[in-house]
Amino acid sequence: MTTYTTVGKPIPRVEGTHKVTGNSTYAADVQLPGMLHCKLLRSPYAHAKIVSIDTTKAAAHAGVERIVTADDLPEFEARYMSNRAYNLLAGEEVVFHGQPVAAVLATDATAAEEALELIDAVYEELPAVFDPLDAMRDDAPPARAPVGEIDRSESKGHVTVEVEEEQSDKPSNVVSQTKFSRGDVEAGFAESDVVVERTWRSAMMHQGYIEPHATVASYDPISEELTIWTATQGQFFVRDQISRMLRIPETKIRVIGTELGGGFGGKIFLTQSLAAVLTRITSRPVKLVFSRSDDLVGANPAGQCVVDLKTGMKNDGTVTALQTKVIYNSGAYPGAPVVIGAILIGGYYKFPNLEIEACEVLTNKVSVGAIRAPGAHNVTLAIESQMDMMARELERDPLDVRMQNAVEAGDEMPSKAVYSSIGLKECLKAVQDSEIWRDRNERPATPGKRRGVGIAVGGWLGGLQPAGAHVELNGDGTLNVIVGSNDITGTNTSFAQIVAEELAVPLDMVNVVTGDTKTAPFAGMSAGSKTLFTVGRAVKAAAEDVRSQLLGVAAERLQAKVEELEWKDGVISVGGDAEKSIKFRQLAGITTGFGAQYPPVIGRGAISARQQAPGFTAQVAEVEVDEETGEVTLLRWGIAQDAGFAINPLSVAGQMQGGATQGMGIALWEEMLHDEGGRLINDGLLDYRMPTALDVPNIETYIVEVPSEDGPYGARGVGEPSIIPGAAAVGNAIEDAIGVRVAEAPFTPERILRAMGKI
Amino acid sequence: MTTYTTVGKPIPRVEGTHKVTGNSTYAADVQLPGMLHCKLLRSPYAHAKIVSIDTTKAAAHAGVERIVTADDLPEFEARYMSNRAYNLLAGEEVVFHGQPVAAVLATDATAAEEALELIDAVYEELPAVFDPLDAMRDDAPPARAPVGEIDRSESKGHVTVEVEEEQSDKPSNVVSQTKFSRGDVEAGFAESDVVVERTWRSAMMHQGYIEPHATVASYDPISEELTIWTATQGQFFVRDQISRMLRIPETKIRVIGTELGGGFGGKIFLTQSLAAVLTRITSRPVKLVFSRSDDLVGANPAGQCVVDLKTGMKNDGTVTALQTKVIYNSGAYPGAPVVIGAILIGGYYKFPNLEIEACEVLTNKVSVGAIRAPGAHNVTLAIESQMDMMARELERDPLDVRMQNAVEAGDEMPSKAVYSSIGLKECLKAVQDSEIWRDRNERPATPGKRRGVGIAVGGWLGGLQPAGAHVELNGDGTLNVIVGSNDITGTNTSFAQIVAEELAVPLDMVNVVTGDTKTAPFAGMSAGSKTLFTVGRAVKAAAEDVRSQLLGVAAERLQAKVEELEWKDGVISVGGDAEKSIKFRQLAGITTGFGAQYPPVIGRGAISARQQAPGFTAQVAEVEVDEETGEVTLLRWGIAQDAGFAINPLSVAGQMQGGATQGMGIALWEEMLHDEGGRLINDGLLDYRMPTALDVPNIETYIVEVPSEDGPYGARGVGEPSIIPGAAAVGNAIEDAIGVRVAEAPFTPERILRAMGKI
Repeated sequence: MTTYTTVGKPIPRVEGTHKVTGNSTYAADVQLPGMLHCKLLRSPYAHAKIVSIDTTKAAAHAGVERIVTADDLPEFEARYMSNRAYNLLAGEEVVFHGQPVAAVLATDATAAEEALELIDAVYEELPAVFDPLDAMRDDAPPARAPVGEIDRSESKGHVTVEVEEEQSDKPSNVVSQTKFSRGDVEAGFAESDVVVERTWRSAMMHQGYIEPHATVASYDPISEELTIWTATQGQFFVRDQISRMLRIPETKIRVIGTELGGGFGGKIFLTQSLAAVLTRITSRPVKLVFSRSDDLVGANPAGQCVVDLKTGMKNDGTVTALQTKVIYNSGAYPGAPVVIGAILIGGYYKFPNLEIEACEVLTNKVSVGAIRAPGAHNVTLAIESQMDMMARELERDPLDVRMQNAVEAGDEMPSKAVYSSIGLKECLKAVQDSEIWRDRNERPATPGKRRGVGIAVGGWLGGLQPAGAHVELNGDGTLNVIVGSNDITGTNTSFAQIVAEELAVPLDMVNVVTGDTKTAPFAGMSAGSKTLFTVGRAVKAAAEDVRSQLLGVAAERLQAKVEELEWKDGVISVGGDAEKSIKFRQLAGITTGFGAQYPPVIGRGAISARQQAPGFTAQVAEVEVDEETGEVTLLRWGIAQDAGFAINPLSVAGQMQGGATQGMGIALWEEMLHDEGGRLINDGLLDYRMPTALDVPNIETYIVEVPSEDGPYGARGVGEPSIIPGAAAVGNAIEDAIGVRVAEAPFTPERILRAMGKI
Repeated sequence: MTTYTTVGKPIPRVEGTHKVTGNSTYAADVQLPGMLHCKLLRSPYAHAKIVSIDTTKAAAHAGVERIVTADDLPEFEARYMSNRAYNLLAGEEVVFHGQPVAAVLATDATAAEEALELIDAVYEELPAVFDPLDAMRDDAPPARAPVGEIDRSESKGHVTVEVEEEQSDKPSNVVSQTKFSRGDVEAGFAESDVVVERTWRSAMMHQGYIEPHATVASYDPISEELTIWTATQGQFFVRDQISRMLRIPETKIRVIGTELGGGFGGKIFLTQSLAAVLTRITSRPVKLVFSRSDDLVGANPAGQCVVDLKTGMKNDGTVTALQTKVIYNSGAYPGAPVVIGAILIGGYYKFPNLEIEACEVLTNKVSVGAIRAPGAHNVTLAIESQMDMMARELERDPLDVRMQNAVEAGDEMPSKAVYSSIGLKECLKAVQDSEIWRDRNERPATPGKRRGVGIAVGGWLGGLQPAGAHVELNGDGTLNVIVGSNDITGTNTSFAQIVAEELAVPLDMVNVVTGDTKTAPFAGMSAGSKTLFTVGRAVKAAAEDVRSQLLGVAAERLQAKVEELEWKDGVISVGGDAEKSIKFRQLAGITTGFGAQYPPVIGRGAISARQQAPGFTAQVAEVEVDEETGEVTLLRWGIAQDAGFAINPLSVAGQMQGGATQGMGIALWEEMLHDEGGRLINDGLLDYRMPTALDVPNIETYIVEVPSEDGPYGARGVGEPSIIPGAAAVGNAIEDAIGVRVAEAPFTPERILRAMGKI
């Protein structure tokens, strides 16, 4: 086994102290001279015709400099208009509650806010549709005018698959669909000893980042350049989108990804387009910061999902067939994770026969965006609940049947893509060995409550985008690392570890910065669990490049061959001979000094990522259910996850715990609630219930390391898997506790009592 | 001859419109939350002991947050204390008028200014010395306590020579000296038909940049990182100096070189050190912006110089011997251009015998910095005046004798270094062919005035520092170029031309930015006429790297060999076959897209500069002298200069005209005047007289192109030579007009009348 000095060690996140002491600079903190503050007037209807917008009174309000409506906006190419971010302000029709119809620009935020109330907008309400099953009916009213060709560019950052959804030709709220099949499902069900068929629902939920969306944009009419400070997971993606939107070269846009207060897939490209257009219209800097309510009503949450699933198993525990229809509610614009949901629902186990259909349906809800592992938790709730139900029916151990059927390297996914090395079984094994699972029948419940333990698995395929990195040797021997990826999960800390490892220097000699889109090498979105997997490889390659350049210089100086050189403790020597040696620091000097004989050492790493390294997790939840109130308490939690190789185990454990916590929220609390008119009811964090420190039990983390083939040191993406199986594990634990199955997440007391037949 | 599409074409400077419309952001424009404004209390004496500084009243003034004196400052390593920038505030002794003794930090600049007057500083005056000849006398009072080892790091950026000055052992105001000799000067003079011996003086002058020194520094106590926005010609140099000064790693410092309102050698490292220390002391951002008066009194102007020169010539015009003593007045800290002055005075002509001594002398004047071609104009006044005087004496054509003796490639400099290819003779030829010179005897003078025409030459060896560059291909096929050099002369525009040329794309597809010291590849100072010569080579190498990567990808895609490929109009094809072709834009897509098969194209260029490419100029001035008032009017001016290859002829011509104008200022007006106590009298631009548009005649530019061996496309540095011979040319023209020689520049009416014996 290779011994490492810096990678594999737990290192606190470099920017952590800034964050916890309130010293980070976020996009909302950016102040520019002459800056205008933008507030948005939002539609009170979910579907309506805009009759008129009278801004006269509002425009006269003190501090208001300009009010912009759809009439003032430039036209964009029709082929991109299925993309929510290109639909800056509603023109003729509003298609969801909270859709912006006017932008007030004022010298301060309060004036802008006040002016919103002075705008007189007249609407004519139209028939609306909210539930995806309602929306799929032949007689359903159209949720909106036809979308045209669907732009999928954003979703490719989260997961890269070769399959494309099909767009429907006939006018319908069903805008795209995917089908996979294998074997003969009828035959499969026929040979089954148990068949379970059920409909599963999971709720629309918010990604739960603490920092609302925020962008400051500034336009320079002389150079025709846009500068955009923004909370985004993908600054190059924002640049490229704005470029094609406004038809200006990418060189004319500088996107500065500011420190992120969370993203979880929800912070890719949303407010930047409007801010960019408004600053171009006004030639003044524009700040567009969402309030918490703005963000809950009008950002891009994770969509609702309905899964009809039929699965079969033989007495010996072998799975036989899977037939499913997965329906994602996209809200008013396309963008649901159709393909990935279709792959994952049949992608954990070796079903010999399967028939999968997945589609996305437009409704008059706010359009959806990605979330950590978009689409995965919805389908996992279905498959992982039914695995338990089948095992229970056959009186088999739920972990054993999973182990028995779990996919391995070489197995096909429903899409016919083949798994590379994966660690699903190893994760199951780690849970099997955990105390929570081992002693599950030995712990007594609190009086008046029932105790149960449940497990579930989940997996994520990962995104693929190319990436570059620079490593530059400074004159004092320290190293500057420049990347283009926005750091949401501590990746810059891991990059520093990689460079320190490769160059055998102490960690504090390495500094990593995310440059902006004019100074940094290209990187894809920090999404799809791929930042360390892709950019990390580029950083490693750049460090290796530095190493080889330095060895070349040292060989020339020491009149030796590169192969004879020894690199140790900051000194390069000919076979350890102190007389024939040169210090790292000296090499730095002779490559940057006056009249230096050698060029500066600039390490360059650039990689293409062609093969995914899917990451799996298995989780175990211990709960208690109050049979009287239906309330569920989380007692213990264990998560095993395959990190491939944990470059920073502290960071990996943090990702596992964070995702597991979000899974708990999906299981028990998180749900965006709408009234009958489609208006969000819980538009604040007092009403929209996220897990708090009081709700979350201690989370044990079991880091599994099945090396990936391409990742640095074998690392694979760790961001996403942890969120996936929480709801299923809790559902399984609830059934273990009270013998009742709840088929709709979150498992609220009301739903539990109803399932128990108590209300 | 190679045909180019983009280099060699006149291109307006990219940032030009911003500058002329007042839209550039300078360091003084940087505003940070909680920022303190710093104003400096300056010594009213040129040499005094500080008895006490009472800040009580000033500290109580509204808005004042802190007053800092030497007592509050950290200690720096003694070996750097000869460097003015390390002597932040005077402690025990002030050594020049205007030296800062206290720094007031207040919430606004006015409060800080007001508080200065409330500080009660008590001094005990000490004997002072101002003139270098006085200071060299054995009985001269010491200008200051001994300086210790002299730190020469800054001056190496301007010119890189292998010779080091010698430091004197015994206590003296003469702190360093250099000697060169060749042949036997006595024998040389003995065989001469004419020998001229004279003492030449040139004045202390300001570099004349429009923007005074300005720095904003901010310290982050959590990361212990310094961020410095500053008007500097060398951001990496500032970083490295601050790093060694404060003993913090270079990774902990981000220097952001802001747009420069001129530098001319005077803006390297001066205010940054104090601002950095003050922000560390207060943990608040600190803005230190010089007023015009601050800048004239207390920056780092170009020093006064006295040259004793004896030269001989034979009847046939051959030069015989040169003997000289060059004395630079450094002011209160070492830093005069001793070595370069010693080389240049004997470096234009093939003197078979020479004996050169040069030294720098400390006085109680403000310490000097570099100026465009530091030290060169002073010695050139001497040698180029005497060349004319000798020719006149021998009744020979002054241009012919120069041509006859001019150095060429292969000739030795006084330092024994050998010239590479140079274009001194070609410049003389260009002047010889000019109308101004050809028709010099045919134009009548204005009645009451005398007309004269004079020529002079000058040369600059150039600095050598290594450099890097990145060229990154964007997804839309445009290109981002990142360099670390601060653009003072339009170099970024030329870099764009180089990349467009190498990749055969239109110029507007290329964008060049100067990154900061955390994101940009290393570059030396923008000084010493080396930015295009060194960084330009790195940029070219980076573009070639992009080209070769793209050809590699194209070859793979087109299943062809790289040698078979044709690159034309944004399309790469197999021998021009449209069926077998791929567009540049497509290549950009397949290297940055989702699931891209190829890595991002990141061009890297890194070069070491080991050989200088000296740049020469010859200039011709036509003047009229009013014999009654002694006033000189400039009528016509011609400048020939060897640019090697003019990548941007517009920029080259601008450099030539700008430098020539400064040369006129040196000739006629620019002089810092002091009272008997060493106090600057003319501390504003009304009294310190720089050339204005009304003073400057049309300047004809003759670009000469003798390719350099190493520069991109043969380019050589063009920034410096143009300032050098102006005073000599005007002096020669004055003698041509009125037959009188003035040996001290500027040639004021008073000095001319005195030389004429009229006063």
